[in-house]
Amino acid sequence: MSDIDVAMARALLLARRGPSSDPNPRVGCVVLDDAGEVVGEGWHEGAGSPHAEVAALARAGTAAHGGTAVVTLEPCGHTGRTGPCTAALITAGVARVVFARPDANPDAAGGAQRLRAAGIHVSQIEDLGLRTEADALVARWQQAQDLGRPVVTWKFASTLDGRGAAADGTSQWITGAPARQDVHDLRADADTILVGTGTAWTDDPRLTVRDRRGADRPQQPRRAVMGLRGLRPGSVLERTGATVLDTRCPHEALRRLWALGSRHVWLEGGATLAAVFWQARLVDHVVAYVAPAFLGLGAPAVADLGIGSIDAIARLRLDDVTRLGDDLRLMLTPTPDPTEGA
Amino acid sequence: MSDIDVAMARALLLARRGPSSDPNPRVGCVVLDDAGEVVGEGWHEGAGSPHAEVAALARAGTAAHGGTAVVTLEPCGHTGRTGPCTAALITAGVARVVFARPDANPDAAGGAQRLRAAGIHVSQIEDLGLRTEADALVARWQQAQDLGRPVVTWKFASTLDGRGAAADGTSQWITGAPARQDVHDLRADADTILVGTGTAWTDDPRLTVRDRRGADRPQQPRRAVMGLRGLRPGSVLERTGATVLDTRCPHEALRRLWALGSRHVWLEGGATLAAVFWQARLVDHVVAYVAPAFLGLGAPAVADLGIGSIDAIARLRLDDVTRLGDDLRLMLTPTPDPTEGA
Repeated sequence: MSDIDVAMARALLLARRGPSSDPNPRVGCVVLDDAGEVVGEGWHEGAGSPHAEVAALARAGTAAHGGTAVVTLEPCGHTGRTGPCTAALITAGVARVVFARPDANPDAAGGAQRLRAAGIHVSQIEDLGLRTEADALVARWQQAQDLGRPVVTWKFASTLDGRGAAADGTSQWITGAPARQDVHDLRADADTILVGTGTAWTDDPRLTVRDRRGADRPQQPRRAVMGLRGLRPGSVLERTGATVLDTRCPHEALRRLWALGSRHVWLEGGATLAAVFWQARLVDHVVAYVAPAFLGLGAPAVADLGIGSIDAIARLRLDDVTRLGDDLRLMLTPTPDPTEGA
Repeated sequence: MSDIDVAMARALLLARRGPSSDPNPRVGCVVLDDAGEVVGEGWHEGAGSPHAEVAALARAGTAAHGGTAVVTLEPCGHTGRTGPCTAALITAGVARVVFARPDANPDAAGGAQRLRAAGIHVSQIEDLGLRTEADALVARWQQAQDLGRPVVTWKFASTLDGRGAAADGTSQWITGAPARQDVHDLRADADTILVGTGTAWTDDPRLTVRDRRGADRPQQPRRAVMGLRGLRPGSVLERTGATVLDTRCPHEALRRLWALGSRHVWLEGGATLAAVFWQARLVDHVVAYVAPAFLGLGAPAVADLGIGSIDAIARLRLDDVTRLGDDLRLMLTPTPDPTEGA
């Protein structure tokens, strides 16, 4: 590995310290001086914080002069004005910029061009592994940019026979501890946890992301409740100020969440709310935790999706199957409706 | 590998030519002459056919004299009389017998002792891999002996949300071609395919084991239909003489099938019949084909199992998960009821 590759690997690590979902992408930056020594590191810490390059250059100070900025994403060059990152790099007098992933977004692209115009040597890193890692880092953010709305991941847990609760309504626990901990790990990858008012009233959930000891993690996604019923006075979500979306329209709910900065919504339930998003074709990913167990009767984990016949069956692509303790986690992506278009 | 090991591997292959489920276990035998050359091979071809040792010795003729019989299962030595195998081995004048698995069944054990009494050198093969293979070969048969009834494997196919058919009753096809072919491969491991009269009337199934081109395989399990309604005149099962078990009691059905020689029943449906066997604790194995798809509504693949609350959830051990095309095959074993005993 070259010094630049090592610095890029470090920049990718730094980027992961940023919020996983945010109006801005996760970016990391390492500044090397003209002798190749690390003189500054930075990452984007979330909306309102400086961009990664600006943070790293601030730490490097004058040592950045004649040096190299190694950054996970092409520095932004907003059309019509010099972006904060390109301006900072030019002002700092760096001689070279190496990035891992080009910025494809029309309102931010052109950064490399602006830097070159200022006499800076700009290149994309050659290592394909580092490029892939940089792509993965911003995959959900990029997907949200492309969709123009938050990405929606629907999570449910069920028995092998598709039940989300027993006949008497009890459901704790269908899956085991490793699967339930995994939910917290994956929740942390979203910026918003969304449930319906029905689930909020029935379960009085916390909807926090907890660590392996059950303690709330320092960084928490937004908790949002959707529906016309509001929150039960005195409930956990009411007391802790969860976001209330007083609409039944999933498009409207996502529009409002987008305006609040949300780019990845983790849809937890109930089955009826999930069905509303599904039928509006607003589910982008499905995470199913399946316990090797039967209940026979009880509330189905998946509600009426408006499918009447086998020809209209909703097929999904099975991206991954992982065993978690006694349970299985299936990662799936909905495929286009076969009865549509054509 | 020694000559004996090679001969045992060959005997195991030969044994697999026999019926997978039969009142007698699958056995293979290779006879070597006194110079270690193969002079006879045999396997048990099913009830009424000669035992493997008898068949192999018949082919070897006088060349067996002073030679070695290599056999997958300890030759039977029925108490009170000299079993056909031990008698044949003694008569043929073999000097040595090597077997892979001892015969633990009280009415057949003692074969080695009887051979030794006749001056023959008898030993179990040392290679643990070959011993394990010999055990696996007769695992279902041994399980049936231990249970005193046929082993029951319940197979079902469902969507990820547990539906066995769409809202309008259509169900062809939930799973893809690789999963459906796999059903035929596994059916071949049973000696009886059992359905309820409801399924027989509704689907008019063939219940045959078919090869990859869709042609019936030469060896077919018994097809049995259980229930008081009988077969529809003119249906495939009626025309081809399927076994009718005019009872609703699963214990009685298995008793009659055992008397007919059945040792492994493949329970295909419908959900109600499977639930009857489940509630009688007569399901030993479950094979679930799960399509990564939703139907939302429609007949559940698993019916009411008499479970009212999460405390009584029926847990299974997940023995294996295999991807077959787009689908998953789960092999499971029911675990003891947590609310029982204690």
